[in-house]
Amino acid sequence: MNPENLRVNGKRLQQTLEDMAKIGATPAGGVQRLTLTDEDKAARDLFVQWLKELNLEITIDEMGNIFGKRAGKNNALTPVLSGSHIDSQPKGGRFDGTLGVMTVLEVLRTLDENDIRTERPLVIVDWTNEEGSRFAPAMVSSGVWAGALDRDWAYDRTDINGIRFEDELIRIGYKGAAPAKKWPLHTYYELHIEQGPMLEREHKIIGAPKGILCLHWYDVYLEGEANQVGPTPMEGRHDALCAAAEMILKVNALPERMGGNMVATVGEIQNYPNSRNIIPDKVHFTVDIRSWDDDLAINAWNLLRKDFESLAQARGCPIRIEETWRVEHSPFDKNLVQRVLDNADMLGYPSLYMISGAGHDASYMNQIAPAAMIFVPSIGGRSHVEVENTEWKDCEAGANVLLHSMLQSADEK
Amino acid sequence: MNPENLRVNGKRLQQTLEDMAKIGATPAGGVQRLTLTDEDKAARDLFVQWLKELNLEITIDEMGNIFGKRAGKNNALTPVLSGSHIDSQPKGGRFDGTLGVMTVLEVLRTLDENDIRTERPLVIVDWTNEEGSRFAPAMVSSGVWAGALDRDWAYDRTDINGIRFEDELIRIGYKGAAPAKKWPLHTYYELHIEQGPMLEREHKIIGAPKGILCLHWYDVYLEGEANQVGPTPMEGRHDALCAAAEMILKVNALPERMGGNMVATVGEIQNYPNSRNIIPDKVHFTVDIRSWDDDLAINAWNLLRKDFESLAQARGCPIRIEETWRVEHSPFDKNLVQRVLDNADMLGYPSLYMISGAGHDASYMNQIAPAAMIFVPSIGGRSHVEVENTEWKDCEAGANVLLHSMLQSADEK
Repeated sequence: MNPENLRVNGKRLQQTLEDMAKIGATPAGGVQRLTLTDEDKAARDLFVQWLKELNLEITIDEMGNIFGKRAGKNNALTPVLSGSHIDSQPKGGRFDGTLGVMTVLEVLRTLDENDIRTERPLVIVDWTNEEGSRFAPAMVSSGVWAGALDRDWAYDRTDINGIRFEDELIRIGYKGAAPAKKWPLHTYYELHIEQGPMLEREHKIIGAPKGILCLHWYDVYLEGEANQVGPTPMEGRHDALCAAAEMILKVNALPERMGGNMVATVGEIQNYPNSRNIIPDKVHFTVDIRSWDDDLAINAWNLLRKDFESLAQARGCPIRIEETWRVEHSPFDKNLVQRVLDNADMLGYPSLYMISGAGHDASYMNQIAPAAMIFVPSIGGRSHVEVENTEWKDCEAGANVLLHSMLQSADEK
Repeated sequence: MNPENLRVNGKRLQQTLEDMAKIGATPAGGVQRLTLTDEDKAARDLFVQWLKELNLEITIDEMGNIFGKRAGKNNALTPVLSGSHIDSQPKGGRFDGTLGVMTVLEVLRTLDENDIRTERPLVIVDWTNEEGSRFAPAMVSSGVWAGALDRDWAYDRTDINGIRFEDELIRIGYKGAAPAKKWPLHTYYELHIEQGPMLEREHKIIGAPKGILCLHWYDVYLEGEANQVGPTPMEGRHDALCAAAEMILKVNALPERMGGNMVATVGEIQNYPNSRNIIPDKVHFTVDIRSWDDDLAINAWNLLRKDFESLAQARGCPIRIEETWRVEHSPFDKNLVQRVLDNADMLGYPSLYMISGAGHDASYMNQIAPAAMIFVPSIGGRSHVEVENTEWKDCEAGANVLLHSMLQSADEK
């Protein structure tokens, strides 16, 4: 068979995804499979069973990352790694993460039933705790594996009930013996739902992100003066919530002010004492700025910070700002991105050269090896919600692009 | 002695207030004496002991309201009632409420030691649960007593732990046998801290509010669309928090827009899912509007509501508005208010004819009898906080105005 005619089995991929979606299924059609819970364990057990059926060499490392290695013709060559995560957000969707693991499984099954042996070994991976919604931060285990985060620090992360990451890892039986330490990679691919509306808007099936946006996180703390609302005239009030409202709108207007190429969001706010008849005296809110252009993001933040300071002064509300997290933009390997686009063309899928607004395990892999991602459309751009959805035919299309991209990388000398 | 020369004992009043402030004292100088807690019981026990020392006729009604009656020369005449409450906010101040009970106690002690017997009986009262911070709503027991609220409905109010009002009343031993049902009153006075900055700003010692502002409470619910912030372009977002921010600023600007004579506040906001990397899809916030002019407040609300609807539409965020509570403005008895001003003059205390922005037990008394209030300054306008404070000399001044106002009312035919 001409290798270009090879295709995955879309029906089997759908069945695999449907079987996995039963674990932690929510009434509204999503899944709740928080990392290191019993649901995560059940999903891991099923995944490991599937790896065993393929006779892969299974390794579980001390962060609970699960690897399955398919031998190549020349196992002295560095392998092609691909995967994502099977943990979910609370009331999350069936595709986020899981699709990026199950499509690799489908690729390996397809190779097996066609007796295709690649030059390089292929490795499938499920990264522990990509979501970070039970144990912050996100992408922690790919981060440890890549050497960007400290293992013991990760072990000590606690959930909302004070339960330690490591203790839960042991409890569900997935603290493995292998060191969570990178080994040489030839390439890394990650297929993922887009989590945004661009593919749908542009009527494309495959997205090839040129990289991941830079990410700035800030925490803003305002102080006002609490007083009974009735007897306190408007003049002379120090209302921390009004100051915050002005700042929230400045954040929202920032991308247009900077000429686009940026998103800026306030997602979280805490207000105190949060009583309807008391003027708010403490407000905390977050700012999330993302752009492809690191300098633009920094300039934007500098402008915003000045605005915040003037607004705070005008309201007589002292302000404290923490620069919580800053990650520079991360361009993927140009050749691999081009390969994704070429394979989409070859397979007849309309494609889009785009940007990833969200971080993924691929971010850390991109620091240590040539990496690229394959996006498939999210219906309505929705994700992290139970209604998150992707057409089965688009899942299949993504898996086919992944198949050919992995094959080409794996046969490189 | 010329009755005009009679004065309370400021030192004794201070001692009384200091003794009471020990019950539920907080480290930062305030008190925490939530209604029907052990601290409230201890404060009641001390209060009842003091009433016994004055040989008053003590009645505890089925709402736990404590009355102490001092016989007049003619007990067929309707009495003069005065008091306030000794429960507090969480981490509240030493003066809010308590001052209005202890000054009446000081008045009665002063009359006793001067062998003064008034024509009409005098009655001191401690109203149960004025604050409403443990069991909502506020002023519930004066409301039941005045016939404006239903007793059994009040009994069924629960605190944050689901504990019933009536059960706690029984537990602390203050569910009395007397019906919580109004009896004929000649007049009602209530002395209270101002809880605002006007007396301090105007360098006055006594405030005579002409009445209590109208009060409108609204609850606003907005719906947006939750999405990952990174991959979701600004265009096409439905960010419920941004819509709320615009509305909060409209509320804040409302008094100036309507030409003053109004306060308008957003004190409470809930944001969902309240995650820094998800666009908010649900926001609830409250609106509190108060004015002396009921029509102005209604017109203001009608304008605001239209603004809310346009802002919600512009952001694509469906809005639902509840009109939670509306109380018309409540003017006190003109003659009694004038009496307070005249007594302040006679005693040489600079006074201010003003408005009460906050509700008080006097609001319900004002529905059934001629009523007036006496305000003394709040340092920095602060209340419902541990640093709440009033000068001892101002407490004494207020008690002297109360003394003479009660005496004059009690000697009326």
